[in-house]
Amino acid sequence: MGADMDLKTYIAECGTKINAAMEKYLPGEDILPHNLHRAMRYSVMAGGKRIRPVLIMASCEAVGGDAESVLPVACAMEMIHTYSLIHDDLPAMDDDDYRRGEPTCHKVFGEAMAILAGDALLTQAFVLLSAPETREVLPHGASSKLIHILARNAGSYGMVGGQAVDIESEGREIDFPTLEYIHTHKTGALILASVQAGALAGGADEKAFAQMTRYGELIGLAFQVADDILDVVGDQKLMGKTLGVDEARGKATYPSFFGLEAARERALELRDMAVAAVEPFADRGDLLKQLAHFIVDRTF
Amino acid sequence: MGADMDLKTYIAECGTKINAAMEKYLPGEDILPHNLHRAMRYSVMAGGKRIRPVLIMASCEAVGGDAESVLPVACAMEMIHTYSLIHDDLPAMDDDDYRRGEPTCHKVFGEAMAILAGDALLTQAFVLLSAPETREVLPHGASSKLIHILARNAGSYGMVGGQAVDIESEGREIDFPTLEYIHTHKTGALILASVQAGALAGGADEKAFAQMTRYGELIGLAFQVADDILDVVGDQKLMGKTLGVDEARGKATYPSFFGLEAARERALELRDMAVAAVEPFADRGDLLKQLAHFIVDRTF
Repeated sequence: MGADMDLKTYIAECGTKINAAMEKYLPGEDILPHNLHRAMRYSVMAGGKRIRPVLIMASCEAVGGDAESVLPVACAMEMIHTYSLIHDDLPAMDDDDYRRGEPTCHKVFGEAMAILAGDALLTQAFVLLSAPETREVLPHGASSKLIHILARNAGSYGMVGGQAVDIESEGREIDFPTLEYIHTHKTGALILASVQAGALAGGADEKAFAQMTRYGELIGLAFQVADDILDVVGDQKLMGKTLGVDEARGKATYPSFFGLEAARERALELRDMAVAAVEPFADRGDLLKQLAHFIVDRTF
Repeated sequence: MGADMDLKTYIAECGTKINAAMEKYLPGEDILPHNLHRAMRYSVMAGGKRIRPVLIMASCEAVGGDAESVLPVACAMEMIHTYSLIHDDLPAMDDDDYRRGEPTCHKVFGEAMAILAGDALLTQAFVLLSAPETREVLPHGASSKLIHILARNAGSYGMVGGQAVDIESEGREIDFPTLEYIHTHKTGALILASVQAGALAGGADEKAFAQMTRYGELIGLAFQVADDILDVVGDQKLMGKTLGVDEARGKATYPSFFGLEAARERALELRDMAVAAVEPFADRGDLLKQLAHFIVDRTF
């Protein structure tokens, strides 16, 4: 697709490709159990920014790989992300009625089906990553390594670990290291895994992989700081979800620790460090630089 | 370990090995997030018969493989099985207070943590299966194939699919094909996957793999019919869970369709067909034959 494209066009084109691929990779509603497959498709197809798939595809291209070949990896990552949203929205967790402007999965299909739809999406990600057709289009031996990166960053050492600490911290005073733990794990882990997975699938050598890892860590943090800021200042209609909920629940956020201005400064600092991290990729890193800007600049 | 062992000794020895391996493969309680890791360990270490790990190890040995080398696969399968129990017990699902004679995960750790512990166990199974150390002890290229077998049989085409249909069928009149769908998917799929995974990891050729697949399908069905029978006639104390609940909830079972006697006959028939399926493995298939008897004979 290419580094000479502006980010908006690139995101739109990735979105179209991802949706077409998802259509193929998600079980059809005509296959039993119909309601389970309906629930899975409902949540995946509800939209969202597809930031993680875009990161995977752009990272793959930055190291010289072909974005088309990582479509299964990008779809698997989006399935994992979507499962985490479905479970996060459950009454026992964040108890959210709306997500991306639409009723959440359990509001439409009931709690039991929403739990199962999340479980099935997480599992389907690994069905897809280990499928013979996926293994064929990836570099030799990359499939298992990709599965390891995604699983490790999605599980108790990564995203789920962050969610667990986040839930336990609700309504309590937490210190800054705990906030950083939540940030780096709950959201940062899958962002980092997206960048690493794209780089690996694109055939990155050790040095390039290390640089991409640094970029991934930095934008992962930037993403969460930006999300915290948006929860305070964002436009509820544009975001398609209930805002101000972090504050109402007494959840610690970056702005609640340091104030809005310091949070913005930190987001800008992380953005600039991320941009610097992909300098070595010259023009091929251009989309990743634009992405770093996109993540942070929407907070102003 | 060996085919000359009687099943009771074999199950006990497998149990010891599995527990020691689990100790290593489950995140420690001293690692953050402590409560999440406690919840994961609580449910995995609550015991249970470890039927699926035993099936994996015995199937591996039946085709001439080394049972030790499949310990990571056996542990991954038990993690998947345990996650499914944790989610199945949730208030929104079967709402069970006891499992294996102990309070269920959400009774001890709360609903949110139980959902996350289930999610983390499912994910950890794939962390383990894709780990470099696991890939090393398996036949070349087997890791991805094993992941595919486990994921496909655990997801919406397998176990989760069976759970979804089971939940939707509660309190409704269902036909026999629907009951068979639930049986083959909810429990049968992971039993079959255990046998196939053991065979694959043990280096089975195509013909042996096909025979083992037939054995796995048959004992999978036998297992569920036996479980249905036990729910009617079993000893609550021995089972360590509330019995008669299927009937109380109006859930269709094999005995509710055909009566207890016909259910027993069907279980015996499935057992004998399973025994016949592993005849070609001669002495090496002996434990699998004993396992088929073990699964069914406990219903008398």
